[in-house]
Amino acid sequence: MQPENRILDTLRDSGSIYVSGEDLCKLAGVSRAAVWKRIEKLREEGYDIEALPHLGYRLAGIPDALIPGEIKWKLKTRYLGREIISYNKIDSTNTAAYELAEQGLAEGAVIFADEQTKGRGRHGRTWYSAPGCGIYMSCVLRPHMAPNEIPKITLIAAVAVVKSIREYTGLAAMIKWPNDILVNGRKVCGILTEMKAEQDRIDFIILGIGINVNSRSKDLPRAGSSLKEELGPSRRGEDISRVDLAKKILEAIEKYYNILKTRGSGSIIDEWKEFSAMLGSRVKIVLPNRTFEADAHNIDPDGALVVRLDSGMLEKVSSGDVVMMR
Amino acid sequence: MQPENRILDTLRDSGSIYVSGEDLCKLAGVSRAAVWKRIEKLREEGYDIEALPHLGYRLAGIPDALIPGEIKWKLKTRYLGREIISYNKIDSTNTAAYELAEQGLAEGAVIFADEQTKGRGRHGRTWYSAPGCGIYMSCVLRPHMAPNEIPKITLIAAVAVVKSIREYTGLAAMIKWPNDILVNGRKVCGILTEMKAEQDRIDFIILGIGINVNSRSKDLPRAGSSLKEELGPSRRGEDISRVDLAKKILEAIEKYYNILKTRGSGSIIDEWKEFSAMLGSRVKIVLPNRTFEADAHNIDPDGALVVRLDSGMLEKVSSGDVVMMR
Repeated sequence: MQPENRILDTLRDSGSIYVSGEDLCKLAGVSRAAVWKRIEKLREEGYDIEALPHLGYRLAGIPDALIPGEIKWKLKTRYLGREIISYNKIDSTNTAAYELAEQGLAEGAVIFADEQTKGRGRHGRTWYSAPGCGIYMSCVLRPHMAPNEIPKITLIAAVAVVKSIREYTGLAAMIKWPNDILVNGRKVCGILTEMKAEQDRIDFIILGIGINVNSRSKDLPRAGSSLKEELGPSRRGEDISRVDLAKKILEAIEKYYNILKTRGSGSIIDEWKEFSAMLGSRVKIVLPNRTFEADAHNIDPDGALVVRLDSGMLEKVSSGDVVMMR
Repeated sequence: MQPENRILDTLRDSGSIYVSGEDLCKLAGVSRAAVWKRIEKLREEGYDIEALPHLGYRLAGIPDALIPGEIKWKLKTRYLGREIISYNKIDSTNTAAYELAEQGLAEGAVIFADEQTKGRGRHGRTWYSAPGCGIYMSCVLRPHMAPNEIPKITLIAAVAVVKSIREYTGLAAMIKWPNDILVNGRKVCGILTEMKAEQDRIDFIILGIGINVNSRSKDLPRAGSSLKEELGPSRRGEDISRVDLAKKILEAIEKYYNILKTRGSGSIIDEWKEFSAMLGSRVKIVLPNRTFEADAHNIDPDGALVVRLDSGMLEKVSSGDVVMMR
């Protein structure tokens, strides 16, 4: 562990008790001046560290910042999020992660940003990223899979995000195929899955997740919402911890990714269906060359949507947009 | 047209007749000194341009070089090869094309190299590229397709290469699924299809083709051969024109790519089957987790190989390696 982290962890462990500068020196194995310098750096990152003469230092507040020191603290994953790169501001976490993956960034690495200036959605659409209010993250995955299995990665991400939001906020989050998460019918999260692949082998996948956490209505696109907005007036005073929610999501993604690799997509699809905002509903399917209405019937093991046409025929939809009808 | 090309084309059109420097100046709209400079540049590229006092210039020989001036000369395509970038030596044409496509290089652009220092085959394998003896090219394609359709691109490339080799050399080239071209059972060409994609939309495909044209046995890996080697002793004296063959291949790829986009893969698969070195044969399928023998039975519309197991069951093989048994 880095001396920096040892100092932070000691302060965390000590709770409201002051730790002397001398003890911090011993623990970190560095000089007094070095301890002081590191305390300053932690303060810059947003940690509220109180210092009292003769007593020492005390951690009075931690930042809700998507930085390695916070995300990795008691993170219960084996490989996902073990390497974290955090940016204050970046064009797009998916773009950055893609470039780094091309240079060899390992499976499990995660890129976070507090703000994206060119956040992207599917098909080159814009994803607006309110600064400091959301979770904008991209995971590098290197599964031994064929390219046609990539929809399964979006599936596990959707299930992981929905379950995490439900457990952490109590909100009844639902999945809208293929890559949106809704609360009360309004979009709070989008998933963008990209890959580099050969014909029969994925080189790497960038799994991008954007969640509006504490954003306010006025800062969001018309059809969008945030977890905080959906919590309603009674709980709107409190901010939701982005760090805690992001950790839950990383833990859930790793869990479902492991299940997918060892046992396939079956049980995950069952969970997906449970949280579907769409199955059983009337939908409009918008494909590049035609638009039609049908009933959303099922999701198949490859992650495609199966709809029932008015003729009674079933049709598999692998791409395109789906509009839910009243 | 560039003045350079106008000078070259005038010399081509004039055949064995000398063209005066004055006429070249007028045609190109440049000074005498500029004509001289351009003639020098053409000579550097390998054009044999004779100059006689009072008579002028004459084109006595053209290089078999995979350069824009040669490839584009009377190339019968609408968009494939309209933009050409040629390298003397590069790590890998696929790597270069991928990087350029990420920066926006348009559909139809083709990268050529005379030598690759890190030529690649499937699954990170090495493709040895004897300097100056082969066609090493990568095409940028941007089809409106889902990622699971990428095998169709390999299919059309295989059919295009096989037909071009057959027509141009008379050799009975055959396709070995998924991406090899054989002559007399020996590999003369490999195809490497790579892509950047979202879950349901291909961003771009890099279609890489490496052909051993005039390479000698001693310069090739053990199982490999070249078109020239397979032509046999009687015709081994003559070099095969890489430029003419590359042009034929570009024309054929564009033709089949257009068919694929407008009418689907059906008729192309029929042609593929006609040239298959494998259908009807006993094969060993090597997958990451198991190896088994079966009879190669068919190719399905998605480009997967269908094999008949000894139990009589049919199984679809989308990835892995296939070894042909005696």
